[in-house]
Amino acid sequence: MAVRMAQKIILGSDHAGYPLRRWLADRLKAEGNQVEEVGAQSEDSYDYPVAADELVAKLLDFDFGILICGSGIGISIRANRYSHVRAALCTSETMAQLARMHNHANVLCLGGRLTTENEAWGILQAFIETEPSEEARHVRRIEELDSPLVC
Amino acid sequence: MAVRMAQKIILGSDHAGYPLRRWLADRLKAEGNQVEEVGAQSEDSYDYPVAADELVAKLLDFDFGILICGSGIGISIRANRYSHVRAALCTSETMAQLARMHNHANVLCLGGRLTTENEAWGILQAFIETEPSEEARHVRRIEELDSPLVC
Repeated sequence: MAVRMAQKIILGSDHAGYPLRRWLADRLKAEGNQVEEVGAQSEDSYDYPVAADELVAKLLDFDFGILICGSGIGISIRANRYSHVRAALCTSETMAQLARMHNHANVLCLGGRLTTENEAWGILQAFIETEPSEEARHVRRIEELDSPLVC
Repeated sequence: MAVRMAQKIILGSDHAGYPLRRWLADRLKAEGNQVEEVGAQSEDSYDYPVAADELVAKLLDFDFGILICGSGIGISIRANRYSHVRAALCTSETMAQLARMHNHANVLCLGGRLTTENEAWGILQAFIETEPSEEARHVRRIEELDSPLVC
């Protein structure tokens, strides 16, 4: 299954996510997608919150974002500080499908040191190929994700 | 390996996370921990952002929080909207260890429909038993998680 064509995708990572980010970016480009990369430019130390900030500042110009750090955890915490971000840390294709269907996720987070290239590609394809559900209960919960904070 | 004694732990979930939350709460109590539960009171529909809000409002009175929805994704997005929360969605014990060591996570998120009781117990134990690393690079990145947003 090829990735749906002509997506605009932005990828960001720290140093730990750099190798997987580069591999995914090249494969996405080879499939005809428009790709931009932010964050680490090598495997030299690069802080994951900084990489997250660089991506979220540009996210609304893209169809999807992909954020990668060593485990995916730190970069997902920072990304979700932003109210226009719904960042889903996924370790399986099932999670990626649920993230899109139920949570309307616009950023996929991956653990670069815990996910093989082929696993990541499968997760990414599942994420991109799955459409958000418009069922009322899901839409209501998406709206609640951006409701005012209670404390 | 028994969970370290006398932890104060708050658990919250939507309906999809309710069975696993109840199982974990009972087991944590049996191990001698002090436990409070918020969120769904049955398997009737309960919105995950509301459950997240109920937990984060009380989090600072506890040692740890545990949040559970169907996949763990939606509830982790809402929890991380709050600057005093570092919520880590974990699907393995390795992720739980990294969440504590590198990200100083104070909330563990689990996918109630994707995680067995025994898997969840192993992940929870790994989370509770692991101490945060005080290495300078990790501490700096934790501080950056709470730095002002860039957009």
